[in-house]
Amino acid sequence: MKNLSFLQRYRLLYQPLLPPILQDLQKLAPLKREAISRASTDFDPALQELFPHACTLPILCFQGKNRSSSFIPVKVGVILSGGQASGGQNVISGLFDALKKIHPASRLIGFLNGPEGIIKNEYIELTEEGVAPYRNQGGFDIIGSGRTKIQTQEQFERVAQTLMTHELDGLVIVGGDDSNTNAAFLAEFCHRKGLSTRIVGVPKTIDGDLKNSFIEISFGFDTASKVYSETIGNLARDALSAKKSYFFVKMMGRSASHLTLECALQTHVNLALISEEIAAQRLSLQQVVAEIADLICERAEKNKHFGVILVPEGILEFIPECQAMIGELNHCLEGVKSGVNQLGQKETLEKLRLIKPHLSQAAYDCFCTLPEEIQQQLLFDRDPHGNVQLSKIETERLLIALVERELNHRRDTRCYTGAFNPQPLFCGYEGRSALPSNFDCQYCYALGHLAALLIQHGASGYMCCIQHLAEPVESWEVIGVPFVHMLHFEMRKNKKQAVIQKGLVDLKGGAFSAFQQQRGRWRLEDAYCSPGPLQFEGAFELTSQPPLCLELE
Amino acid sequence: MKNLSFLQRYRLLYQPLLPPILQDLQKLAPLKREAISRASTDFDPALQELFPHACTLPILCFQGKNRSSSFIPVKVGVILSGGQASGGQNVISGLFDALKKIHPASRLIGFLNGPEGIIKNEYIELTEEGVAPYRNQGGFDIIGSGRTKIQTQEQFERVAQTLMTHELDGLVIVGGDDSNTNAAFLAEFCHRKGLSTRIVGVPKTIDGDLKNSFIEISFGFDTASKVYSETIGNLARDALSAKKSYFFVKMMGRSASHLTLECALQTHVNLALISEEIAAQRLSLQQVVAEIADLICERAEKNKHFGVILVPEGILEFIPECQAMIGELNHCLEGVKSGVNQLGQKETLEKLRLIKPHLSQAAYDCFCTLPEEIQQQLLFDRDPHGNVQLSKIETERLLIALVERELNHRRDTRCYTGAFNPQPLFCGYEGRSALPSNFDCQYCYALGHLAALLIQHGASGYMCCIQHLAEPVESWEVIGVPFVHMLHFEMRKNKKQAVIQKGLVDLKGGAFSAFQQQRGRWRLEDAYCSPGPLQFEGAFELTSQPPLCLELE
Repeated sequence: MKNLSFLQRYRLLYQPLLPPILQDLQKLAPLKREAISRASTDFDPALQELFPHACTLPILCFQGKNRSSSFIPVKVGVILSGGQASGGQNVISGLFDALKKIHPASRLIGFLNGPEGIIKNEYIELTEEGVAPYRNQGGFDIIGSGRTKIQTQEQFERVAQTLMTHELDGLVIVGGDDSNTNAAFLAEFCHRKGLSTRIVGVPKTIDGDLKNSFIEISFGFDTASKVYSETIGNLARDALSAKKSYFFVKMMGRSASHLTLECALQTHVNLALISEEIAAQRLSLQQVVAEIADLICERAEKNKHFGVILVPEGILEFIPECQAMIGELNHCLEGVKSGVNQLGQKETLEKLRLIKPHLSQAAYDCFCTLPEEIQQQLLFDRDPHGNVQLSKIETERLLIALVERELNHRRDTRCYTGAFNPQPLFCGYEGRSALPSNFDCQYCYALGHLAALLIQHGASGYMCCIQHLAEPVESWEVIGVPFVHMLHFEMRKNKKQAVIQKGLVDLKGGAFSAFQQQRGRWRLEDAYCSPGPLQFEGAFELTSQPPLCLELE
Repeated sequence: MKNLSFLQRYRLLYQPLLPPILQDLQKLAPLKREAISRASTDFDPALQELFPHACTLPILCFQGKNRSSSFIPVKVGVILSGGQASGGQNVISGLFDALKKIHPASRLIGFLNGPEGIIKNEYIELTEEGVAPYRNQGGFDIIGSGRTKIQTQEQFERVAQTLMTHELDGLVIVGGDDSNTNAAFLAEFCHRKGLSTRIVGVPKTIDGDLKNSFIEISFGFDTASKVYSETIGNLARDALSAKKSYFFVKMMGRSASHLTLECALQTHVNLALISEEIAAQRLSLQQVVAEIADLICERAEKNKHFGVILVPEGILEFIPECQAMIGELNHCLEGVKSGVNQLGQKETLEKLRLIKPHLSQAAYDCFCTLPEEIQQQLLFDRDPHGNVQLSKIETERLLIALVERELNHRRDTRCYTGAFNPQPLFCGYEGRSALPSNFDCQYCYALGHLAALLIQHGASGYMCCIQHLAEPVESWEVIGVPFVHMLHFEMRKNKKQAVIQKGLVDLKGGAFSAFQQQRGRWRLEDAYCSPGPLQFEGAFELTSQPPLCLELE
């Protein structure tokens, strides 16, 4: 506590508002939501085979009743899985408070450092004193997080062992699409084994790609987008003042461009590349580079040699030729792994010689157009899933190098005579563990309550979903949705697998349409907007605005 | 206006408090401050020769009197010089408001895009409507800024021409040490020419190195250090949560480590390199690298493979062997410039061949220990002053590469067995044009008033100084200090020149001592503090704290 700043201590005292439905947990009865529940026969037969139990589960909502029930104590475990997202610790404090409201003798076990904690049974018991210093704070340090997956039969068995050791009534898994996919399988596994532990998921990820007809937005997205928008707004103002630099800002978020879109809407930058649009238009890398160079040339004609350009971290995977090349690389590096790993990081040519026979001509050509630093980065070791570690690829620097090359061509033909002064930046880690916005504080606190409620009512294999988030907290509605409603089949590592579908930017949606309507103006005018730093005190518009993309959908 | 965010519009309404002495400009009389004024004979004779007039000027303070004077209208020009710093636009609004208080018919001319605007007589007249959208906003875009210097005889003549064309009573130069050095010469030049325009300076720079016994801190430092501390606090929390990355954060500020020190005090990072200390200890680059590697090894023994390390941008210039090498490079690249410039950015080896004969063995050896990317950066084109463009040198990446090499050595000898996952970051441009803190808003608004007051009372060749800034605005005192009191002689480009001395971190000062006392604990404990985003509403401690280093001095 002694290391907390004044603002951190001040935020400890903040009391998140709860939606009315969650204010008196004793007076709630679960209700099957007929209108949107599906008959088990509506599911893909392959899903029914994998999830015979889950496919029979209804979507649940809750209804107030006159008399309070008296509940018995429950014992619940919680894990934080994957990358940090602001608000995660409020899921835990919300869960803790709700369990204590259900019964003061309820207990909460926090498994340490992500799924590994439950596999190895490493944990702490969370008490009021233990939870108190983390209320409304950023980070996942209350119990730590980790990226281990619960996927293998052995892992399932070990988790089951831990659940039985603690006699847990429930386990709350706070994670992204992968972690919640694992949770779906774990729930089915527990059911088959006759375990009474209810498995419940909470949708987390700053990327915003855990999103579907039930999940409006994952938690952490709001805070991250606001932290990044503060930075981008500052950079835009700086570019406009000094009039000499192009900021190329890489935006965290590999699989979708939600953060890029939200920040573009907030700050009115000159150009924001949206991966989903590039994929839909099947642009080549050279076409993307030409688009940026066009912008720079058009602005140069107006004597503007500055600007701000947002680049989603994962853009390469959305450019068909790059995606094909990365796919081939992922595949063939598996085969020559040991040979490649023996080589130093910089021995690109040697590595290239090893892999060349395994690449198609198109993939090889695409690889060879890239600057050498990027080639090196592509040949780095894979992540545990065997994928290129895209977060290590400095896409913003790649584009700068290619745009520079393109502008030099245009200089040769006198199409461009400006001075190009690019500055690479990355909006990344600093947005994951920031002090959560009021929106994320309240959203997460409510999610924690909903998780407790679902467990209390015996629901297993459910995702906690809160709806109408663009409206004031008073109007939020809570539902429990069986994971199986969010699953579909995808090819992963050459296998057809049931996974939670990632929610990409909807090119027909309201947010993208609003962006489309305005971006023409933003290209050449300097219509920059500075949202400024997150505020915690003052008018609703200052402190509690939900993300723009929620309001626009 | 239509592009302003809610917070920006809200900040337009903020009314900066003024120190009592500046609240009624009509009721003030200037007073010679005997105690700290020097007799002209106290100055270096060489200074007396350059500044025969300025050496006779007293330090001025102001005293209230009973009767209001009635003033005639004045016409004043203003330029913003050099890099952006938050609050610059409040200097202009403060100046504008003060001029209008002096007489409603007073006029303010804003010269465009820095000193170039006054050389070329490019300007706008600032009106209430023109100033209004920039009140309490970040950036310098109200009139732009630029890095041209006013140094040559021809430039002085052209500036004098502009001053006469507009019949200006005063010119306010908002800038750092170089710009104010230029202002000192310009004032003397105008005096010699018999021009009545009073030249007044305002101390600007986020780096904090325009600092001496009269200037407690330059404006912009507070906002920048708070923007960076927000980011660093977030990163620390993220490091602590994920427990797997070392963030190497390069801090803007080439000539001094004030920002690094302030942010370290605010966030309690594991290690903050202070250039001035490294210079005092005459450390070699390898010793600095070893210090970082030691930290990483000590933490690894406690099973901590994460942390946050702050690196001042200009650190290389403070490491004697690197400084010597850069000096030799600066010098010899002048000679072989055309040959080197013909070569592409990557042809390092070829460039090296060209310059090798001009380097000492020590400098050549030092150069050769550097990673290739850094060698390339060192051989880039110089800045207009002929110096290595240190802001283009990615010091954080240099240190990462060298630390990685060192850790690999230690791995070979089993001294270190950890996993080293470094992440480079730069706290830079986003701190220069941020929405100014209340502190900077008020400080700058008062500086603008003081500039008007000095001009009104005929003071030329003066720097605006406000003192007791660590206390509430009510206790702030204002003085005008002749530039000449801040000048000393330095070798610049092989010439002895009179310049304003840069204020470095005082290794015997309160701020550094406080840092020294605590840093041992911060190394290994994770005592991180997250100051969080700048707040504008709420308790004084939330919104209006001056920089810690001011309070500690």
